Amino acid sequence: MNNYGNLMPVPAKISFEPGKLRITKQFKIAVQGIVSPRLTSGSLRMLQRLSGRTGLFVDQKEVSNVMNDSGAELQISCQREGRVELHEDEFYTLKVTAEKAFLSAATDLGVIRGMESFLQLLDCDDQGFFIPAVTIADFPRFPWRGLMIDCSRHFQPLEVIRRNLDGMAAVKLNVFHWHLSDDQGFRVESRQCPKLHQMGSDQLYYTQEQIREIISYAAERGIRVVPEFDLPGHCTSWLVGYPELGSTFQEYHIADRYKIFANSINPAKEATYQFLDTFFGEMASLFPDDYIHIGGDEVTDEQWDKDPEIVKFKKSNGLETKSDLQVYFQNRLGEILAKHHKKMMGWDEILDPKLAESSVIESWRGKEHLVSAVQAGFPCVLANGYYIDLLQSAEYHYQNDPCPEKSSLNDAQKALILGGEAAMWSEYVSAENIDSRIWPRTAAIAERFWSPCDVTDVDDMYRRLDTVSLHLEELGLTHEKNYLMFLRRLAGSYDIEALKNLADVVEPVKEYARHINSQHTTFSPLTRMVDAARPDAKIARDFRRLIHQMFAGTPPDQNKLNEAKAWLTLWENNHERLQQTICKAPALKEIADLAADLAKIAAIGLEGLSLIENQKRASKEWVEAKTIFLDEAEKPRGEVELMVVSAVRQIIRKAGGCP
Amino acid sequence: MNNYGNLMPVPAKISFEPGKLRITKQFKIAVQGIVSPRLTSGSLRMLQRLSGRTGLFVDQKEVSNVMNDSGAELQISCQREGRVELHEDEFYTLKVTAEKAFLSAATDLGVIRGMESFLQLLDCDDQGFFIPAVTIADFPRFPWRGLMIDCSRHFQPLEVIRRNLDGMAAVKLNVFHWHLSDDQGFRVESRQCPKLHQMGSDQLYYTQEQIREIISYAAERGIRVVPEFDLPGHCTSWLVGYPELGSTFQEYHIADRYKIFANSINPAKEATYQFLDTFFGEMASLFPDDYIHIGGDEVTDEQWDKDPEIVKFKKSNGLETKSDLQVYFQNRLGEILAKHHKKMMGWDEILDPKLAESSVIESWRGKEHLVSAVQAGFPCVLANGYYIDLLQSAEYHYQNDPCPEKSSLNDAQKALILGGEAAMWSEYVSAENIDSRIWPRTAAIAERFWSPCDVTDVDDMYRRLDTVSLHLEELGLTHEKNYLMFLRRLAGSYDIEALKNLADVVEPVKEYARHINSQHTTFSPLTRMVDAARPDAKIARDFRRLIHQMFAGTPPDQNKLNEAKAWLTLWENNHERLQQTICKAPALKEIADLAADLAKIAAIGLEGLSLIENQKRASKEWVEAKTIFLDEAEKPRGEVELMVVSAVRQIIRKAGGCP
Repeated sequence: MNNYGNLMPVPAKISFEPGKLRITKQFKIAVQGIVSPRLTSGSLRMLQRLSGRTGLFVDQKEVSNVMNDSGAELQISCQREGRVELHEDEFYTLKVTAEKAFLSAATDLGVIRGMESFLQLLDCDDQGFFIPAVTIADFPRFPWRGLMIDCSRHFQPLEVIRRNLDGMAAVKLNVFHWHLSDDQGFRVESRQCPKLHQMGSDQLYYTQEQIREIISYAAERGIRVVPEFDLPGHCTSWLVGYPELGSTFQEYHIADRYKIFANSINPAKEATYQFLDTFFGEMASLFPDDYIHIGGDEVTDEQWDKDPEIVKFKKSNGLETKSDLQVYFQNRLGEILAKHHKKMMGWDEILDPKLAESSVIESWRGKEHLVSAVQAGFPCVLANGYYIDLLQSAEYHYQNDPCPEKSSLNDAQKALILGGEAAMWSEYVSAENIDSRIWPRTAAIAERFWSPCDVTDVDDMYRRLDTVSLHLEELGLTHEKNYLMFLRRLAGSYDIEALKNLADVVEPVKEYARHINSQHTTFSPLTRMVDAARPDAKIARDFRRLIHQMFAGTPPDQNKLNEAKAWLTLWENNHERLQQTICKAPALKEIADLAADLAKIAAIGLEGLSLIENQKRASKEWVEAKTIFLDEAEKPRGEVELMVVSAVRQIIRKAGGCP
Repeated sequence: MNNYGNLMPVPAKISFEPGKLRITKQFKIAVQGIVSPRLTSGSLRMLQRLSGRTGLFVDQKEVSNVMNDSGAELQISCQREGRVELHEDEFYTLKVTAEKAFLSAATDLGVIRGMESFLQLLDCDDQGFFIPAVTIADFPRFPWRGLMIDCSRHFQPLEVIRRNLDGMAAVKLNVFHWHLSDDQGFRVESRQCPKLHQMGSDQLYYTQEQIREIISYAAERGIRVVPEFDLPGHCTSWLVGYPELGSTFQEYHIADRYKIFANSINPAKEATYQFLDTFFGEMASLFPDDYIHIGGDEVTDEQWDKDPEIVKFKKSNGLETKSDLQVYFQNRLGEILAKHHKKMMGWDEILDPKLAESSVIESWRGKEHLVSAVQAGFPCVLANGYYIDLLQSAEYHYQNDPCPEKSSLNDAQKALILGGEAAMWSEYVSAENIDSRIWPRTAAIAERFWSPCDVTDVDDMYRRLDTVSLHLEELGLTHEKNYLMFLRRLAGSYDIEALKNLADVVEPVKEYARHINSQHTTFSPLTRMVDAARPDAKIARDFRRLIHQMFAGTPPDQNKLNEAKAWLTLWENNHERLQQTICKAPALKEIADLAADLAKIAAIGLEGLSLIENQKRASKEWVEAKTIFLDEAEKPRGEVELMVVSAVRQIIRKAGGCP
């Protein structure tokens, strides 16, 4: 065990000591100080997870009846109920000895953060389960640690939200940014403006009762809920029921494709602001958080320029550019929010000196926007680099720091960087695969937001991520278990071993590759190989690492070379059985060539390794021919790509005598 | 393909013909006659499942805009909206040719039943997906085809209910019997008697809004919802908030253990009936079905005999026995239900000549009670033999007929047998494993309720059950995917191959074995091997069948013998790796001996096969010694049992020269 154990995020300060606190069915929690509802329910959940993971018939059912029980193994001390708001105290200390554990915090938020650490510390040996002796003093580096889920493009049922809130709590995230409206659907019941959800959705929306339920569920776990209503662009779903809010007079339909639509709110009509006052007044009392996110991204002025009234309005108000008009609109909106005691948050396009200084800028287009915003004195949250829908590796996100050490910002500016948010846009996710897009990678992002900035060891991050991922399954998250389910459906069979061998080394295409020339609508199937395949495919990653390490010395490490041969042989031999699977499954036809290429590159890799092993040098022609083939094999088919080509390329180059 | 294809339940009349209707992305549905909301939403779900299973970007998004489109591949004709009530018409015909499919029914209930058949017919070849040409005329054998879920002992979240309703619809079940109150929890919000849910539950209950949502979800799928409020026994959760309803004066607590409690409603107080009038009045308007289930099972008179008032009441009303008093109570309850326009249903203990003749008896204790009830002229539903919580095989349930051909009942009496219900009691199930207890076995039960009584081929049932089980995963059911999740948690690792080899051949103990001397409370972990293991373990069943078939001829079939050796070798060789898994996982300690026994019986089996193969006869002593060992190996450990012992026993006997 290295010095972080299986903890993720790594605590601010931690040191393991000799000794083990044994966990048996007699395990008990006692509380000193306040026993808040959050503490009570948190303890119960902790006991249930402990019991579930160990199979122990843990006796204790509640904590309220064991105050000041000095015999209890876990002694909790807590001074006050935490407020679920920005900058609340989340500090805790956890001291475990062979006899007892002491978890102390000023707030019950700190306590529940510490409970997650306690559960992550659970380990076992041949005598049973234990918590290793340890001293932890822990607090977050950033106060704003978020996950955004877009529930507009594909509606996500409440159970998806709930299990992801549990996942967030497990890795100490504290802001659920709920993207609730966009061109493809308006997802909140509005009693004041009911045509928003009635006509702006396919009847898939959250009732106010359900919203309140989620807010309370999140609050129990120390998570704020920041709703987003994207304006003045991304607003088609508003206009279906209320076309008078739009900048052109037309009939609107909920969008079923993905692009930047020209539709926009009419900022030149006073009625618009009356409507928004009513609507945001209602939402302000529904959502208790201090912040409301108003979007503000990707606004086009196509319609504003065409409407004579808007053109006239601009002129008479001295607004020259599109940006001037957007600023006018968002300032009016800001006044409305302020009237309802809310602060504004928006994507980085809203940055403007006239913004209320409490407004939070969420930078998505690039870090230069974050820098501009903090230089202008605005608090900031970084989303750029954390777009998990773009399916990059955990390592990629992990290395993205909201406030890098080498930053040229001064301390005051750095202090304005509140943290970051992982962003799960939902063009290409259903309730079946959204978890595998969020987890486990978001745990690595959560570590970036919580842990000291010098916690940067990628290999160790991946080691701990595996364990976290396993434990996230306890919370109902489906990132692991739905993988084989997808493969069974694709194959139309339980016999998926060969298909899994392929799926293990492919990934969905990354960044915006799937968006380009996409045939997708909101109705399209999300059950293809690209939807089953997971970002950051572990087997492929491990293989690339193996080849890298194998070539680290000269001559290459023989054990690693043998291991590499075993993998390549598996892939080569896999092909016949895989072909049988594919020819019985029309839904797999689109990856038939890619599957064949895996066998071929495996053969090439084996040929290369054999040359290397026999200390022969491949001819230049051979290297060129194989390289041409690898270039082809690397191309996506069916929107998935083989993730072991680069490693085989390395073998080929080495076989050809390149350093 | 045999003559039933993959259909389950098997239709009343079916004949396959040559020809294939190709399914492409242009696939369209058109409707003639009425286009009801049920038909519209059902079509949309069907299109989504078709698209999901095939990966085809099916163009059509709704059916309302394609009425009378003669080009559409699936022509639906429907005359009226169905009523979701007993005896509604569910007949449909489905005619598929190479060019078109025609689905006709009088009601939209018939249409959605036919849609499920259509989806089950979906097949593929090397040219893609198709529906085989077929002519089906289909209707149910019994009008009452239910699944009961006990949500009291372990509360089941709404998503569990919803996905199981989808599963029910997929196999044409039409009654969701919702067991909503018991000693361990009262699970419905009552606005009239709020202490029922507030004090009678751990805050896990369904709000009236949620109940309405489920009723509507069920109705969309042609499923009735029959609520059960168990009285006058099984009532502890009522008494926590309303102790004055009880037969003794005491403080009540929600039960957290499982047994027959003495607590009972006081039938001698007029206030009891006033309370029940209020409560059932409220429930009668919440639940639209004609029937309310009042339980009535397992009533004890322990408290009735001790209370002088009740003893006096009995005397003054000429009620001699406990049964007389229960009958008095249920007749009063029957009057209350009748006043609120509901018919009474109850477990077989309620049978009494004075019952209103519309009352439905649900027989759970044995078929003799069903016979008595129909002989007494009451309509009946059979639950006995369908208790899926007792974890018997699908075959066992499949062979249980509500109305066997050889029955001595006359036609009028037979007509009183309305059907049956699978019963899922929830002492030992969580939301994580309830699906694996319900599915796929309930599909076999559904076939018993729907298909002609001469559909009894067990092998073919199992063949089709495999496919149905695979398709049930589309609906979010977790019976398959949670299996490995449980194993990962138990092993604390992704490396579960060896553990799976063991788990594949064990089953949880059956009938009431787990109840006897149980340490379980409602808080106990349901994450042990016994909770992961699945009833009717396929690998074990197939192995038993293999050995049976192997010995069908003399000499034993060599191919099958080789296959048997391969399995036994796998289990023998599995042991070393399995031991490594177990010694790292304290939660698996309880099955360490059982795991070792699998390797030992595999070795014994191999020894036996070797003798047989070499035409040698084992000594009597050898047979005896091995038999003694097998007797031990067959005993449950950790509440699971090895399901391949009987097959190895057969090998030993044959090796010893027994016929």
